[in-house]
Amino acid sequence: MAPPPSAISMEGLDDTTAAPFPNPLTLPLEVNDIFGRRNKADKKQWGVAAPSVTSSFKIGSPRTDRPKAKRWDDHFTDETLLRKGSSLKQAAKHLSKPGIISLGGGLPSSEYFPFATLTSLVPTPPHFAESDTTPSTGTELRSGKHDLATERSIFDLSTALNYGQGSGAAQLLRWIVEHTQLVHDPPYRDWACTMSIGSTSALDMTLRMFTTKGEKILSEDYTFASAVQTAEPMGVGVVGVKMDAEGLLPGHMAEILGGWDAVKMGAPRPRVLYTVPTGQNPTGATMGKQRRQDVYAVARQYDVIILEDEPYYFLQMQPYVAKTAGAESQEPPPPRTHREFLDALVPSFLSMDVDGRVIRMDSFSKVIAPGSRVGWITASDQIVERYRKHADVSTQGPSGFSQIILFKLLEEHWGHSGYLDWLLFIRMEYTSRREVILDASEKFLPKEVVSWVAPSAGMFFWMKMDWRKHPQAGTQSLLELEDEIYNTSIEEGSLVMKGSWFYADPSAKHDTLFFRATYAAAPSDKIQEAIRRFGVAVKKSFGLVANGV
Amino acid sequence: MAPPPSAISMEGLDDTTAAPFPNPLTLPLEVNDIFGRRNKADKKQWGVAAPSVTSSFKIGSPRTDRPKAKRWDDHFTDETLLRKGSSLKQAAKHLSKPGIISLGGGLPSSEYFPFATLTSLVPTPPHFAESDTTPSTGTELRSGKHDLATERSIFDLSTALNYGQGSGAAQLLRWIVEHTQLVHDPPYRDWACTMSIGSTSALDMTLRMFTTKGEKILSEDYTFASAVQTAEPMGVGVVGVKMDAEGLLPGHMAEILGGWDAVKMGAPRPRVLYTVPTGQNPTGATMGKQRRQDVYAVARQYDVIILEDEPYYFLQMQPYVAKTAGAESQEPPPPRTHREFLDALVPSFLSMDVDGRVIRMDSFSKVIAPGSRVGWITASDQIVERYRKHADVSTQGPSGFSQIILFKLLEEHWGHSGYLDWLLFIRMEYTSRREVILDASEKFLPKEVVSWVAPSAGMFFWMKMDWRKHPQAGTQSLLELEDEIYNTSIEEGSLVMKGSWFYADPSAKHDTLFFRATYAAAPSDKIQEAIRRFGVAVKKSFGLVANGV
Repeated sequence: MAPPPSAISMEGLDDTTAAPFPNPLTLPLEVNDIFGRRNKADKKQWGVAAPSVTSSFKIGSPRTDRPKAKRWDDHFTDETLLRKGSSLKQAAKHLSKPGIISLGGGLPSSEYFPFATLTSLVPTPPHFAESDTTPSTGTELRSGKHDLATERSIFDLSTALNYGQGSGAAQLLRWIVEHTQLVHDPPYRDWACTMSIGSTSALDMTLRMFTTKGEKILSEDYTFASAVQTAEPMGVGVVGVKMDAEGLLPGHMAEILGGWDAVKMGAPRPRVLYTVPTGQNPTGATMGKQRRQDVYAVARQYDVIILEDEPYYFLQMQPYVAKTAGAESQEPPPPRTHREFLDALVPSFLSMDVDGRVIRMDSFSKVIAPGSRVGWITASDQIVERYRKHADVSTQGPSGFSQIILFKLLEEHWGHSGYLDWLLFIRMEYTSRREVILDASEKFLPKEVVSWVAPSAGMFFWMKMDWRKHPQAGTQSLLELEDEIYNTSIEEGSLVMKGSWFYADPSAKHDTLFFRATYAAAPSDKIQEAIRRFGVAVKKSFGLVANGV
Repeated sequence: MAPPPSAISMEGLDDTTAAPFPNPLTLPLEVNDIFGRRNKADKKQWGVAAPSVTSSFKIGSPRTDRPKAKRWDDHFTDETLLRKGSSLKQAAKHLSKPGIISLGGGLPSSEYFPFATLTSLVPTPPHFAESDTTPSTGTELRSGKHDLATERSIFDLSTALNYGQGSGAAQLLRWIVEHTQLVHDPPYRDWACTMSIGSTSALDMTLRMFTTKGEKILSEDYTFASAVQTAEPMGVGVVGVKMDAEGLLPGHMAEILGGWDAVKMGAPRPRVLYTVPTGQNPTGATMGKQRRQDVYAVARQYDVIILEDEPYYFLQMQPYVAKTAGAESQEPPPPRTHREFLDALVPSFLSMDVDGRVIRMDSFSKVIAPGSRVGWITASDQIVERYRKHADVSTQGPSGFSQIILFKLLEEHWGHSGYLDWLLFIRMEYTSRREVILDASEKFLPKEVVSWVAPSAGMFFWMKMDWRKHPQAGTQSLLELEDEIYNTSIEEGSLVMKGSWFYADPSAKHDTLFFRATYAAAPSDKIQEAIRRFGVAVKKSFGLVANGV
């Protein structure tokens, strides 16, 4: 049988002391000490729909040595400036009056929530493989309806399943704030986190916060198609910044902004950059530290807000070592400690954000599960406050089921160190997957017309076609050539994505032709076979081999 | 021990035949026959992120005898008209090609979802009381990660926790469509449902679909404060329509629309009515059938879209019978069959919507749990298609945890009949709660200055103050008097909500003074005590009793 749910071991314990969680450390480090270094938490914030003070979740003393974020009033749209607080929430302040009885809030009684317990079976570190998560080797995490009242946990179904705040529940938010501090430690004083229902929604909401009809934003020249499709109906255009293998070029960004002609462009100079700096979709490009610093400098120069969309941040892989024929493969060893692991990650824009001009969007989608619909943003208090207010009257916080399931896993079971172990497991898994697609590409793709760079992060493999060598290059457009190769690949039984679907600005002139393949989903043998088929298709299209076989 | 999860009994069964669910009927009726009358379902739609054809979920033949919905192109905002489909989703059509291998979609592998099973303990009809939901009397519903592949269920964690469609998963959506047909049977041909992440978000999205900066919408004169706060930052004003005990007055609505002076009002004539027709928040008012027909007629006359926000629809209670002193109470018996139960409900706007001009917003918040963050809208195919497209690039579908937990409960455990049993249970519970607040009000409120109407639905008790009898009526404003009574009540230890917080248009002139109390949340003794305290406060404020005791 599975061990008892970890919540049981909390019975009667003050959650504000060093937590008695079974320490799932598999690597020596101090990461779970965070629980012991927590500040005293105000228990009122564990209650139903209780507001939380996220700054109180930070570890250590307030960093008064650090600058405060810039104010963004002149960057906000009317919608954002007009947003008021909920008048009903004014009443909440009276709830702390001793003995008061509230007939105020229109919240249903948890008596009528038809869920007595909720139990998930999850992996126990270091046994993360799917096949290891069985009733005998995994751990069952159980939430009861009234665990808070019975002091079995600081979070329960009666709280999680009632109405909440737009920020999400304090119980999970505290863990998120700590994780963010551990990984990024933003270098200004008044940063804060608030949950989103995923970064797709966070982008929709932040765009409405800073842009309005007729304006334009910047992004990588090839970018996440949904981002363009989110902006477009708002009347917000996207201007593509040229890229190399390390992502967008700060020089070109400066050139665009410096030479902006509002009349000619029909829009004021962009004040927002949307970027996926790590394992970018679709190109797989990852900006190094220097590149990020250079981009940040341009953003400062032109007072641009950076929307840092980072779903793939923890899909950074082991350094790639090209295999030399005949030689023994020299694969670097995995990080030996949590600190080594964190140090091996490229620094985020957030970690260098002295102005508070970065809105970082994190998500559990790629590292836990997309269906959780839980993410968070990190930004200055002022921006986070506007976001929360918007969430209160639109998305609200994430699903209570999702929040309590994540809380049980991340706070009560894994803790920070177990989560880093999990992320390291994911890192090694993606590293293996990348080797599969790179090996297959070496073997099956015709290098005279296809080239690529080994991705260092993310899910995507980006294949460049030397389209000028295509037999119809002189008579057909780039899009026609792309379509021909795409269809030939489908005929061969391999589906990859057209690069043109990822144009930041489809109306701009393009002279490159790419296809995107992902190594995230399919099993190894299928990845190999799909690349083999794609190779056949490319050879056929380019007339390299008769009948392509 | 709990009985085995119901999913097990589905093993090897074709879900398209009459379902073998344990029939939890407690009342004789044909409701679960719906499962047997289902049309053959295309199994492809049970897959990861698979699109679904919601019209295929309707029971019976297409109603070609019914009119098609009006087209709303001339009502849509630019944002809605500009919204395109996702280019990436074009690729999905090739997935049905036999043998094709996809390296297309950027979906993570379910191998890396750290959840092997998810189990909820829920009530078994007819034992709905919280105290009856124990491991020995309730039922454990278990979802596995690969139940679909192993034919244990048509829905599993590997599907629910991956990316999905903005419409939500077909598995739960089918149940929702059937439920909607069972309860409302919209009288036009091309209605459809799509999930929302709750009606707060649905309102945000539908407002953006039909209104833009500088426009105005109509609503009840006192309305849900969040609705106003959602519209306000968009630059959309709300014009209040006068109400009586049955909600908004169609005559006044016609007067406003007929006499609209765009120049004077600074806005074109409103084309959207936002209404909560049943157990309205804050007034508790419920429109009868005739009232709804009259409002619908005015909406047709002025081509107005009706946003029917109906969280409280199933909080319709037993008919209220005033207690006569000395006489035996004559409480009407509960409905004896599901048909009687459904017939006892006031017809929705949706059920009389021959034009397809109603967007009905349903939610599980008040009848299952707010934290599920799952609701749905029902409207014409054209409107639903626009909504889904917006969801694809903003909210996405609801949490996968929420969806699979609801699917297990509603489809595999309760079925339609068990859910109606549950709703009947809720109806009787709220009826008891209402009696408590009405009895307490009879006993403790000074009738010379407080009056009320027994609510027939919802969570709210609306108390009218005869403010002209207040000692300061001549010298203080209405808002000052309200504030004085509110603060006195808090001093006495009772928190109720100010009516003015619910003004549709705070700038309009008001000459009524109300307070809202809810009987939904607190236990009986607390409700009684809070009303007693409020009575003391009112007497003090109005100088009815020295020192109020």
